[in-house]
Amino acid sequence: MSTYDDQSAVTVLGLGPMGRALAGAFLDAGLRTTVWNRTPGRDAELVARGATAAGTAEEAVAASDFVVVCVVNYDASDAILRQPAVADALKDRTLVNLTADTPARARDTADWAAAHGIRYLDGAIMTPTTTIGTPEAVFLHSGPEDVYRAHQPVLDTLGGTHTHLGEDVGRAAAYDIALLDIFWTAMAGYAHALAAARAEGITGRELAPFAQGIAAILPPLFEEFAGDADAGNYSGDLNPITSAASSMSHIIEASEAHAIEASVMRAVEGQARRVIALGHGTDGFIRVTDLLSRHGH
Amino acid sequence: MSTYDDQSAVTVLGLGPMGRALAGAFLDAGLRTTVWNRTPGRDAELVARGATAAGTAEEAVAASDFVVVCVVNYDASDAILRQPAVADALKDRTLVNLTADTPARARDTADWAAAHGIRYLDGAIMTPTTTIGTPEAVFLHSGPEDVYRAHQPVLDTLGGTHTHLGEDVGRAAAYDIALLDIFWTAMAGYAHALAAARAEGITGRELAPFAQGIAAILPPLFEEFAGDADAGNYSGDLNPITSAASSMSHIIEASEAHAIEASVMRAVEGQARRVIALGHGTDGFIRVTDLLSRHGH
Repeated sequence: MSTYDDQSAVTVLGLGPMGRALAGAFLDAGLRTTVWNRTPGRDAELVARGATAAGTAEEAVAASDFVVVCVVNYDASDAILRQPAVADALKDRTLVNLTADTPARARDTADWAAAHGIRYLDGAIMTPTTTIGTPEAVFLHSGPEDVYRAHQPVLDTLGGTHTHLGEDVGRAAAYDIALLDIFWTAMAGYAHALAAARAEGITGRELAPFAQGIAAILPPLFEEFAGDADAGNYSGDLNPITSAASSMSHIIEASEAHAIEASVMRAVEGQARRVIALGHGTDGFIRVTDLLSRHGH
Repeated sequence: MSTYDDQSAVTVLGLGPMGRALAGAFLDAGLRTTVWNRTPGRDAELVARGATAAGTAEEAVAASDFVVVCVVNYDASDAILRQPAVADALKDRTLVNLTADTPARARDTADWAAAHGIRYLDGAIMTPTTTIGTPEAVFLHSGPEDVYRAHQPVLDTLGGTHTHLGEDVGRAAAYDIALLDIFWTAMAGYAHALAAARAEGITGRELAPFAQGIAAILPPLFEEFAGDADAGNYSGDLNPITSAASSMSHIIEASEAHAIEASVMRAVEGQARRVIALGHGTDGFIRVTDLLSRHGH
């Protein structure tokens, strides 16, 4: 049996924290795992666990039919993949790009892969490195369904849940962008809240249980507001955007009174005030979705 | 027994959605409830359920030893309370202000109350109107502990959990500000994510289950980052702020490619870039808390 048909051989390009976690999960599943990283010295622990260290990216690719790349962004994955020797080695193999970037970059890479006879899937990892190999991991995939189905058993060895979002190869990145948008914006709110609380003599540990209470009310609201956004029907009966804007003004006033800059909340309030100025003051805050979308129409 | 000592009599000033919910819970608990609203016509349902409608704010105050005010902000509560007839009627009574505003306004109102012989507590309601009278309601209180303890049984009739945060009367508002900061910033992230997803042909209902997954990972992170902020020790081993800033750039690029303005994420990214420029690129994102606090030192 040639290496090319060996379903138990995988290659991981990129050995940052996430790449190492992926390679570790493949090793734990008993797969013959070849690893490579641009900067040497990242593979010692993996080699001790049974991985094969390749000297070059093309050697790493040649070792397996199934190649995963996970680096900081597509500038970095392009720098590895778009070399003639690496592209030649990838021909007729499957490349799964788990690097995070934009939908446009994913589609561009799929075009490049198609031009070089490479089977291509694009994915996104939605959970921290510590979840890899556990039931908590969440992976999103997009690209040709037959390629995804063929390699599903190998992907499943990474643990967690895997969702194929469709044949549009940019779809995983599009979900990734939207979900990171929620995550990092919420984190920015939390960092600012910790600063505002600190200025009032409230410690992080004092605030945290109540902050967790706020996080707990988000999931049902996310479901409700998703329906509102799809329907274009933003009822503000319980909480009109005028009331939200009033809260936002209080947050800005209270933090700036302590010389804590409120650039994020000022931007949020600006969006709310524009919705109100457009005559939608009795709608709920999520009408901001239409305000933002309108610019694209 | 005079009205003044009647523990079963309460007055609610302000009959917006929250004021009506509060009055309804008092009625359900069998308390003799007097209601008043600046704009007439909001009391019909409450009167049908047994409430007494007062013709003026001072009449409403005179009817009970325990007075709750819940209006849109302290400009509105000042307009009601800081009239000579109302202040006179409140003398030797207990006023609980459940209106949301800044800590400074709460402290100013406490000073005014003290100068007029009014017992004063300041509170914040952290949950929607629909939770009032149910176990899901969350109330925060601050001000003199003896006043709080004396009226705890009446407050408990509003349902949910009540926490006395301390004698500093501004403390409930300070928590309120910090928690609303988290809430509205997260909501702004969600509205933006819905717009970015829509531009990629992803509906709200398709995104929502994954958005709920993001919300679910927040509580343990909130606890961890609170400890980091208290200790001033922001380990970025698993996710350095340089990596966060890279994600933020992708979000901005992907949304602006669809002509969706990214003012909120641009402000967030600006904070991350300043932390990196100050030499803390290997720290975690929550080091932004120190960046923001530094302006106050």
